Amino acid sequence: MSRHQRDALDAMLRSAPRSETPPTVEEQRSGFAAAVARPAPEGVATRRTVLGGRPTLELEPAEAHGRGRLLYLHGGGYVIGSPDTHAGLVGELARRAGLRTMSVDYRLAPEHPFPAAVDDGLAAYRELLAAGTDPRDLVVAGDSAGGGLSIATLLAAREAGLPQPAAVVLFSPWVDLTLAGDSIRSKDGADPIFTEADVRAYADLYVGAGDRAHPLASPLFADLTGLPPLLVQVGANEVLLDDAVRLAGRAAADDVDVTLDVSPGLPHVFQHHYGRLDEADAALDRAARFLTTHLTAAPLEPTH
Amino acid sequence: MSRHQRDALDAMLRSAPRSETPPTVEEQRSGFAAAVARPAPEGVATRRTVLGGRPTLELEPAEAHGRGRLLYLHGGGYVIGSPDTHAGLVGELARRAGLRTMSVDYRLAPEHPFPAAVDDGLAAYRELLAAGTDPRDLVVAGDSAGGGLSIATLLAAREAGLPQPAAVVLFSPWVDLTLAGDSIRSKDGADPIFTEADVRAYADLYVGAGDRAHPLASPLFADLTGLPPLLVQVGANEVLLDDAVRLAGRAAADDVDVTLDVSPGLPHVFQHHYGRLDEADAALDRAARFLTTHLTAAPLEPTH
Repeated sequence: MSRHQRDALDAMLRSAPRSETPPTVEEQRSGFAAAVARPAPEGVATRRTVLGGRPTLELEPAEAHGRGRLLYLHGGGYVIGSPDTHAGLVGELARRAGLRTMSVDYRLAPEHPFPAAVDDGLAAYRELLAAGTDPRDLVVAGDSAGGGLSIATLLAAREAGLPQPAAVVLFSPWVDLTLAGDSIRSKDGADPIFTEADVRAYADLYVGAGDRAHPLASPLFADLTGLPPLLVQVGANEVLLDDAVRLAGRAAADDVDVTLDVSPGLPHVFQHHYGRLDEADAALDRAARFLTTHLTAAPLEPTH
Repeated sequence: MSRHQRDALDAMLRSAPRSETPPTVEEQRSGFAAAVARPAPEGVATRRTVLGGRPTLELEPAEAHGRGRLLYLHGGGYVIGSPDTHAGLVGELARRAGLRTMSVDYRLAPEHPFPAAVDDGLAAYRELLAAGTDPRDLVVAGDSAGGGLSIATLLAAREAGLPQPAAVVLFSPWVDLTLAGDSIRSKDGADPIFTEADVRAYADLYVGAGDRAHPLASPLFADLTGLPPLLVQVGANEVLLDDAVRLAGRAAADDVDVTLDVSPGLPHVFQHHYGRLDEADAALDRAARFLTTHLTAAPLEPTH
């Protein structure tokens, strides 16, 4: 629908400077923040709070209604990113879905390797339930590593005997830290952001010498039985394309209600580019509709 | 959404009598007609015509509007089925999408083995274009073998230098006549309709000693580049589940706009059961919306 927008985005991403020497983790974190961070949209109030023992950004759309709650887990290879880098993306999803949202600053590697992030995701999910949130009013979303972490969190919740939420949305999820997907190589030239080496470096920092196929690190290798309805969105210009495709296949094999939504010509987590890329806005609208469709709670009244 | 409906459908399908001796082709055809045929819905006028040299059932919803046209290719393993067995299913899709529809009685095996069906599909598509249908007003859909045939027809059209249509919808497509999908075995117990032997028998009749991996017989093995936006719906209780999953993956790898929509607990072409299975109605509504969304022609006026 927007070839010009797609081409401009691709050129912009390819023009990003690459340093001669590998950047430090701190340089990666500040560079990522400079590259992707956008403020929460107008009409979405933000508040710093704590959930499951971790700093959390609460985003509340003016038009939030009903009891629905969204738990969001940001991307960044388990190494970079934060609720602040994702305030724009998460705020847009929260606004379109009309959902009060908790975006958790889970612990990052290499300071806190696997399974620290999963522990934090589970603690946040558990606290939302403990605070009285009906799981039928609760949905979960995440992008990239946060997409894998969303699934890992729900698997950990299942193991802990907690109920599942009403639905899950994943943008370009990273679910195979062994990098066994064909697209890791076949999409190497098409992907304007990542190479295999980039992704492998994140896996090194997160899992180190541990088992990269552990189902909570690479939920592609988990039994997904019992997961709630799942929407997976991905761009076709991604080395991680096959993570999304294979996750949908795994979910289907395990009798999960799953929708895979592939957008041609687009890069990793293209939803960050709402407002300047028509496909990003359309994808966010579909994601919001998917979440609200699966919330059983009837809209009751404005939350404030 | 309808566990009781799903369970009742599964039990009904499993209770179908299986004869002691393998049924003849004629017995299969009449048995299939008795099992699935439903009349075109009220408000959808039918008319016998000819398209691409083959008998064709034209279905015209009272609320058809604009210039949009749907070409439909029915399922039945390339051996059984007809526009009459599918008048209900196709009429429901036509009605919900508001599209005048041509359902083609392409030649069947074993009387007319591969590539007769593809030749007929291409002839029908070619005649629609030759009659002045703008390809942007034209969409294609099919179920099971008719889903594979839909893709094969568009690949043949591409080879012939014809333009692609605006969108394609497939219900439980059969796209791998080599039967290499994991679900051929893993879903054997869950599938209330087909076993590997059933599906293999159809491949034997259609391709015989020919190449079952030929891209026009098994379009899973084709280069899908340039295909229009594609929606694939499938039930999770199907030995053909992985045909749908792998076709979506192949399309994604070839940069096609593709959506895969998996409904848990449901059998092959569950859309036949509209009106008595909520998921069938919901799936048909999504399919209709997908088709009309991709038609660029603005509704002009009622067609009659």
